[in-house]
Parts: sequence; C-alpha cells; structure tokens
Amino acid sequence: MDGMLGNCLENVRKEKPLIHCITNYVSANDVANMLLACGGSPVMADDPLEVEEITALANGLDINLGTLQSRTAQSMLLAGKKANELGHAVLLDPVGAGASKFRTGTAFELLNQVRFDAVRGNISEIRALAEKNGSPSGVDAAFCDRVTRENLSDAVAMVKQFANRMHTIVAVTGEYDLIADAATCYVIENGRPEMRQITGSGCMLSGLMTAYLSANPDDSLRACAAAACAIGVAGELAWNYLTEYAGNASYRNALIDAICRMDADTLERSARYTTM
Amino acid sequence: MDGMLGNCLENVRKEKPLIHCITNYVSANDVANMLLACGGSPVMADDPLEVEEITALANGLDINLGTLQSRTAQSMLLAGKKANELGHAVLLDPVGAGASKFRTGTAFELLNQVRFDAVRGNISEIRALAEKNGSPSGVDAAFCDRVTRENLSDAVAMVKQFANRMHTIVAVTGEYDLIADAATCYVIENGRPEMRQITGSGCMLSGLMTAYLSANPDDSLRACAAAACAIGVAGELAWNYLTEYAGNASYRNALIDAICRMDADTLERSARYTTM
Amino acid sequence: MDGMLGNCLENVRKEKPLIHCITNYVSANDVANMLLACGGSPVMADDPLEVEEITALANGLDINLGTLQSRTAQSMLLAGKKANELGHAVLLDPVGAGASKFRTGTAFELLNQVRFDAVRGNISEIRALAEKNGSPSGVDAAFCDRVTRENLSDAVAMVKQFANRMHTIVAVTGEYDLIADAATCYVIENGRPEMRQITGSGCMLSGLMTAYLSANPDDSLRACAAAACAIGVAGELAWNYLTEYAGNASYRNALIDAICRMDADTLERSARYTTM
Repeated sequence: MDGMLGNCLENVRKEKPLIHCITNYVSANDVANMLLACGGSPVMADDPLEVEEITALANGLDINLGTLQSRTAQSMLLAGKKANELGHAVLLDPVGAGASKFRTGTAFELLNQVRFDAVRGNISEIRALAEKNGSPSGVDAAFCDRVTRENLSDAVAMVKQFANRMHTIVAVTGEYDLIADAATCYVIENGRPEMRQITGSGCMLSGLMTAYLSANPDDSLRACAAAACAIGVAGELAWNYLTEYAGNASYRNALIDAICRMDADTLERSARYTTM
Repeated sequence: MDGMLGNCLENVRKEKPLIHCITNYVSANDVANMLLACGGSPVMADDPLEVEEITALANGLDINLGTLQSRTAQSMLLAGKKANELGHAVLLDPVGAGASKFRTGTAFELLNQVRFDAVRGNISEIRALAEKNGSPSGVDAAFCDRVTRENLSDAVAMVKQFANRMHTIVAVTGEYDLIADAATCYVIENGRPEMRQITGSGCMLSGLMTAYLSANPDDSLRACAAAACAIGVAGELAWNYLTEYAGNASYRNALIDAICRMDADTLERSARYTTM
Repeated sequence: MDGMLGNCLENVRKEKPLIHCITNYVSANDVANMLLACGGSPVMADDPLEVEEITALANGLDINLGTLQSRTAQSMLLAGKKANELGHAVLLDPVGAGASKFRTGTAFELLNQVRFDAVRGNISEIRALAEKNGSPSGVDAAFCDRVTRENLSDAVAMVKQFANRMHTIVAVTGEYDLIADAATCYVIENGRPEMRQITGSGCMLSGLMTAYLSANPDDSLRACAAAACAIGVAGELAWNYLTEYAGNASYRNALIDAICRMDADTLERSARYTTM
C-alpha cells in the first residue's frame, strides 16, 4: 500500500468535481447524493437542447443507459462528443447491455463515437459488449457469468483484452471487482454480497468513479480502483453500523453515509486488492 | 390460518422473480428496493423500442400509470400484450384513474387490450374504473370514498362485481384492504394510517404484489392477499422500531427494511383478515 | 415574534393542500415526502395531455425546471395558465437558470406568460433572471455569488427590485435566505451548511413553500418566510439527532422527519430572522 488510493480520495474532496449525469430515474437521487457524499456535486440534465452547454460547465460526464429512450440516447452522443472535445473525463455505464437490441445498439454506438475513460458494468453487461452477444437476466450478472476464484484468470484476460481493444479502462463489479487497462488489472475483494440488494449500487459507483476520474486526470486506473475500493469499504463499514431491524433501505442510506464520512486513511487501511 | 400466506412469501424468496416495472419516476427507487427486499428483483424499462424484449426476460410485469406520458402508455400496451403471450403475471396500478381523461382512458385501453392478473388501486381509482366516473382528489381516496365498517359490504360487492366483469383480481387498499375475485374477498386489517404519509406506498405494494403473483402462479388470489398482509404487517412492525424523532422518511425506510427481514412465521402470525 | 409563522404552519396542517408538482426526477420522491411531512399532499403529472385537469384538482402548483425537456416545458406553460385562471398559488423554481439557453429561455417564457406568487432559487439562478446574464456553476450558487454579511444590503436591494419588477415574491436561499416582495425582505439565518450536501434540498423547500402559499392565501410573504424558516429549523434539529455514523443520506431523512414532527411553537421559538 503506497497511500495512493487515499490520495485519489483526497483529490476528490479538494477538486470538488461537478459531474454531469445523464442517468436513469430509478437511481438518480442516490447517484446525486453519492456524488455529494464523496465531495463532488451533480448536475442532471438529459435533453438534447441543453446537454452540450451543461457538459461544458461540468468537470466530468457519467452516461448511464438505465431507463434509456431515444431522446436521451441522442443526448448521450451529443454530450459525450462535447466532453471529448473539452477533455473531460467520460464514463459509460451500459446498464442492461445485452438485454435489448436498443440498449446494446446504443452502447455500441456510444463506444464507436465517444472516447470513454472508463466503462463500468456487471460481468454480463461487459461480456455483452466484449463478445457482441450474451443474454443477461435483467440488470444483474447471470449466475453462469459470475466471476469466481475458478474463472478469475479467464475473466481478467477478457477484461484486459476488451480494455485494450477499446483504449479505455474496463471496470467489472461483482464479488470480485476487476478494474483493468490493457496492462494491469486490479482485483478487489472489498464489499459485501448484501450490496446487491441495494438498487442502483452499480449506478452509484459509476457516479463516484466519474468523480474520482475527474479529480485524478493523471492517474485514471488508480482512480477507478480507488472508487471501487471506496464503495466496497463503505459497504463493509455500513454493514457494521446497521441495527438488528435494518434491511436494504437502511443499508442504502448507511452506504452513502459511509462514503460521506470516509477519509484517506480508512480507505488505505481497508482496501483489499491485488494486481494481475 | 393454514400456513398458506407464509408459503406465498417463501415462494418469492425461492423463485426470486424478476419484475419488469413500467412505473412512475416518483416512487421507482422505492419500488425497486421493495422488490429486492422481498426477494425478487426489478428491471425498469419504459421505451417502446425495448419493452417487449425486456418483458420477455422477466417473470412478471407491473404497469403503473403515475407520471404517464404518450410514450410510456404505448410501452404499457406493447409490454402487456407480450407478457400475456408469454403467460407472465401482469398487474395494473391505475394511479390517478378518474383524475384526467388521459389516465382514465389509458386505464380503460389497457383493461380492454391486456389480460390482467390483478388490478390494484385505492377505492377512488377502482371506483373510477368500475363505475366509469368518479373524481378522486389527486391520488388519494377521497373521504367520501373511504371503505369503512359501515359501507364494507357494499364495497366488497362492488369489488367482486368488478373482478367478475374483468376476470381479474381486484385489490383495493386503504383502511381495509379488499382483495377479491368474483367469488371471494379477503378483508385485511393490517397496516397503520401513517403509511398514507409515505409517498408511493401503494406503488410499492403493486410491485410486491406482482412478485407474489409471479412466484405463486397457481394461487393468485392468496398471493395477492399475502402481499397486502405483508406490507401491512411490515407497516406495523416498522412503526414499533421508530425512534422518537422519526417521521415519514424514516418510516419509509423502516417499511422496506421490515419486508426485507420478514419471514413466513411472522407473516402468518401477524396477518389479520377475514374472507367475505 | 408574533405567532404568525407558527400560524402559517398550522394552516398547512389544517388545509392539507394538494400540490401539483411538475418537477425533476432527481428529487421528486423527496419533494413528495416533504409535502406529506408538512401536512399537504403531492400529485405529480407532467404531460401536456393532462396537466390542466390535474392542476384544476389541486390547490397549488410547483413548477421546477430540473431535468427539463420540451414536453414538460409545454406542460409548465399549460398548467401555469390554468392555475392562474383558477387563482391557485403558483411557484417557480428556476433550477439551472443561466446554465443553458434552454433553461434560461424557458424560465423567461414562464415569467412572461404565467403570474407567479413566488420564485425561489439560489442566488445564481435569481441573478441570471434578474440581470439577464450570469453563468452559474451547475445548480449551486457560485462562490462569487454568495450572499455574505458584506454584500447583504446589495443582495437585498437586487432581490426587492426583481420582486418589484415581476410583481412576485422572490426567495433566494443560501447561507442567508432572502424572502422579499417589493417593500420588505425577510433575512433568515436558520439552517446549516451541511444541508447543501443533500440533493434536492432546494426543490424540497420549493414544494414546501408552495404548500405554505396555498394554505395562507392572504399572507403570502409571511407564508414563504415561514416555509424557509421551517426547513432551516428542521435542518438544525435534524443535525442534532444524527448519530456519529451519519452522513448526507441520513441527514436527508432526518430533515424530512423533522418537518413531519414540527409544531408551531418550535417554529416560532427557533426562527431567526430580521426584516430589511
């Protein structure tokens, strides 16, 4: 441990990046509060009539395909290109890629026309994009698509290869989080299985990761790994604070709270990862 | 008590139904967390370009008319017909039926073109559909439309008649929950009046009921009654856990938490209903 | 203190105003729960096909420009004119005015075509409308645009002038809340800086203020001041209830809870303001 993950966190608190989110209405509120928790702030606007101006005011762009429609798909392209022009960090969360032709097609169109600093999804979504097929069950990784100790090296190879082909960081989150560029993959073991019962936990991480990318422009891979560790550690801390009556709603609040209170030392001390 | 309500709950935890929700943006997050709490999972997609594919991947369909627009009204028809084709459970929550020609008209069009396993609303909404009139105050049952001890048998008759005419289960929730098919009406007394101060508590029940229907295909009426008892019991338990500073926001979280922690025994032991 | 702020609160609990909200999907759920917390209730509908009918059923109208699109901009005009016709209280929350031509243009079109009882925003948004320029950083007041002890009298003058020109109440919220008509400005010091870490705290106040306006038609300026004091006092009380693990998510819930439990005496006793 070299203090570098904690450094990424501190840069977010110092730079206070404003993140333009074009995201779904299911988790938009949680994403916004997560961004405020980490020290950034959100601006949410999804109409073609204004997304380029809004993106120009922001420091980073988070594109999330949940509750996609034609109007917002167009906004994603416009905002993505503008953000590229301005050199802002841009992240794609391909929610539900592989689940419908519309989602998959929009994800590919975005990947072709926008340069992404990172693409973050579950293993099914990333496989659907990497292998141009896949039939994920809804928005969760299908069982056959889980990253396990057994298939870990295959999964890492797939993720690195996709990162190489797309010239981007690829972040697969699940039991193991894999955060990779073409050369290096962080394999992260933080987090708890109960985080899957919080709707939008992936969307929240995407927002957080965009803030970390925006505040750490010279250290993108580590920034993404730091964001993934941070939410995993937050999930572990939050779990410990829960009362005996708590369930997934309280856990959601505690997760955001834990990001709000996290400091660099806690992140460094609690992060559990290797690189492959 | 015969253990059958608890059985319905356990089937949800075992089957883990994936529920496609076409629902409003006000309560979408709570509905998603409620579905995860009960053991199911949500997929939210509302665009005509993809709803048929999404519904095909899911086990049940929850159609909710809150924040309706032309685009989503079309999606509801497409998804409803596809779900019928595939034999999935389909529920209609006619939020605001009677409050505008658009909502009422869309509700009728859906009832004409889609076969619903259940229709769940407050008494004003159900009356607006059953009597083809009514002027509900917003989305809450008007006072004159409350189900009380005095008008209970009239209300039960109305609900059964509507269930008979529509060949569906009709669920009216309020002080008394009435869950009826043409022959039998469960009259449920669980719940607390303060649940009315939680926005989207009806929408949450609709999501929950769709999960119960999907996981209990051979026992639809009991499944709907079990879902209504479950949320009522959750409301009672959650109320007891609240601190002296709590209000409706904490109550919302505690309600979802209580569904998350509920087991079959608690549901059986705490359900209070008769049949008429 | 003359008991009049507490009176405004009590009128909301007595009148139970139904507020039609055309608002953004980021904070819609919190706005709805805030309205229920204060004693009102929400109805959310944003489509041109129904907004006039929905507004006609309600007692007040809250127009919020967050996540604006052409379809909802049209709805805002239709609903605003209908609410004017019916003499309902109408409030404008010009979220992001100055941040894009679309938001600024829509705000001006609404101000030209609809008579507003109040316009509530942060100082950047209000300046963008008052001075027909400004480049706010996203949806928060830029640092150079903060109301401070030093520039307070200038800010009050600007706000009164804008109120005079627009024949409306102007509410600027931030470290100091300024609630002004052409003649009088309430300068309110309640609240905590941490409330800025709650997404949608401004939107929640706009909903609350619309309920206060609707229930206090003969005392609009004081009603707006009472709403601003109420949320500030709630923010102070909520802060005291937080545990050592709490962050912005818990604070959001505690804020709504505190409005839910607030009584007239607490509001009177805790309100801190002067008039200028």
